[in-house]
Amino acid sequence: MEVERKYLLSTLPPREILGRGVAIRQGYIDAADPEIRVRQKGSAFFLTIKSGGGLRRQECEVQIPPATFEKLWPLTEGARVVKTRYTVEHGGARWEIDEFGGTLAGLYLAELELASESETVAPPAFLPIVRDVTDDPSYKNKTLATRGLPRS
Amino acid sequence: MEVERKYLLSTLPPREILGRGVAIRQGYIDAADPEIRVRQKGSAFFLTIKSGGGLRRQECEVQIPPATFEKLWPLTEGARVVKTRYTVEHGGARWEIDEFGGTLAGLYLAELELASESETVAPPAFLPIVRDVTDDPSYKNKTLATRGLPRS
Repeated sequence: MEVERKYLLSTLPPREILGRGVAIRQGYIDAADPEIRVRQKGSAFFLTIKSGGGLRRQECEVQIPPATFEKLWPLTEGARVVKTRYTVEHGGARWEIDEFGGTLAGLYLAELELASESETVAPPAFLPIVRDVTDDPSYKNKTLATRGLPRS
Repeated sequence: MEVERKYLLSTLPPREILGRGVAIRQGYIDAADPEIRVRQKGSAFFLTIKSGGGLRRQECEVQIPPATFEKLWPLTEGARVVKTRYTVEHGGARWEIDEFGGTLAGLYLAELELASESETVAPPAFLPIVRDVTDDPSYKNKTLATRGLPRS
């Protein structure tokens, strides 16, 4: 069971901390159940299906050829997220910092994966945290893709 | 491990044996690896992904809304199979008889699922069998969809 914490940032941390980012674009052919998503991460392309919940939960992710991605991408119009992801290792933890683009420009989120619910990691000082948005559904990628920027 | 036997038929068995069939159309967004297929069977719609082989084999099938099917179907142009499937129970075995349509009209296949490699079932007399095509790749649905009728 993967536990994540997600924080809203007021701005992007200094470039020298971030290093080089990787370009990500993802879009939803269907954002309901089953969720059908395509994603480009750098030069790799993926198709993901998630369906059901609990014991009936099914998740499938396969790498697809660029040509297949280009066929599917137009079907995601109106339900897309474009961002640059920076990965920063700090104090034994691995932070993923997303700088959103397009209609979501100005949004910055930092995510951390924890080994368990009880584990705590103090966010490093270089992260300009506004607040913890882990449990706020409006900051899920799927919601951002389909509904745009939350009015906070 | 599912074992199937597939037979080429010269024509369709008598209608009174077949009963009512169900309309199936399926098409391949990608016919390579991963294979990405959409299928309509009666009033139900499915998206299937198959990837890898052996231990890395992954297969995912989810039911999708009609609207999602209609978005994906145009991407399968040139790689489609349309058929009517009849299911006939005989001597404890369950036969699936496919009557193909479109550019594959005139093709009839009968399929039987066996519990093991060693099980044998004598095909019933009402099946006008030409020959066993279990191991002939040209009679796979994917090949029929992309290459059309085999020159037998």
